[in-house]
Amino acid sequence: MRILGIDPGSRITGFGVIEQAGFHVEYVSCGVIKSTPDFTFPDRLKEIYDGICEVLETYQPDSAAIENVFVAKNPNSALKLGQARGVLMLAVRQYQIDLSEYSAKAVKQAVVGYGQADKYQIQQAVRALLKLSSTPSQDAADALAIAMCCSNHLAVSQVSL
Amino acid sequence: MRILGIDPGSRITGFGVIEQAGFHVEYVSCGVIKSTPDFTFPDRLKEIYDGICEVLETYQPDSAAIENVFVAKNPNSALKLGQARGVLMLAVRQYQIDLSEYSAKAVKQAVVGYGQADKYQIQQAVRALLKLSSTPSQDAADALAIAMCCSNHLAVSQVSL
Repeated sequence: MRILGIDPGSRITGFGVIEQAGFHVEYVSCGVIKSTPDFTFPDRLKEIYDGICEVLETYQPDSAAIENVFVAKNPNSALKLGQARGVLMLAVRQYQIDLSEYSAKAVKQAVVGYGQADKYQIQQAVRALLKLSSTPSQDAADALAIAMCCSNHLAVSQVSL
Repeated sequence: MRILGIDPGSRITGFGVIEQAGFHVEYVSCGVIKSTPDFTFPDRLKEIYDGICEVLETYQPDSAAIENVFVAKNPNSALKLGQARGVLMLAVRQYQIDLSEYSAKAVKQAVVGYGQADKYQIQQAVRALLKLSSTPSQDAADALAIAMCCSNHLAVSQVSL
């Protein structure tokens, strides 16, 4: 079972791919999709959309997960983030992959065991849990953490079947 | 010059198409794209995206305009609206059509001559200006008003060239 985690952002979108077998997870890949600040917003949305399509095409995940955002600073940043999130969700849907949503708190609890963990703690936990030789960037680490949160939920639901 | 106006919404997206020649405008079509409330949000985004692609395919506009939203009730509704807006902007960009953005105030001023006009006044103004035999729905009328606002700006910029 291959899981794609997505940490949406209008400037930087993180992605992380893991392979899950029961409670065992293995790292596959991670990275970021950056949009060009000088571009118009429609052009930037196309960069984000094309970027995630390439990731979906390359890694062919069976399932995807995205962070559920409730805490935007203001309606204007929520709108921008929503626009990026919209094209990411559309791409996942077009590839006919199930998309789960998890709160930031659930993601932090899944990897650090503590819902208020900071970005650095997430990076270190992801590195340790996936036995990585180097620390992924914050956005890529967040995306891997989202994938791992999804993996935990799938593993638990498989056991309870 | 054919102009498509878009009034974005996660439940109902209005669209309106007009033909512009200088300061003269003519009605072509209008309608709404509805997303199914029972569907998952990715499915609803796909409905909105597929709907606007069909409109773009059918009417082949030369230019498009969308309302610039600054006044969402709260970050959560801004996020939902942003997601719908994102897939609409992506579709327009994929068809390589220029997209302009206008504030609600500018749109109201363009058709009613008054930035605080209500929905009913917009419906009546659009009906009168485009010589329609019936009153379009609120969302379709808003979309036509956005297209007319864009048309005004294009006409003025053509004159000043």
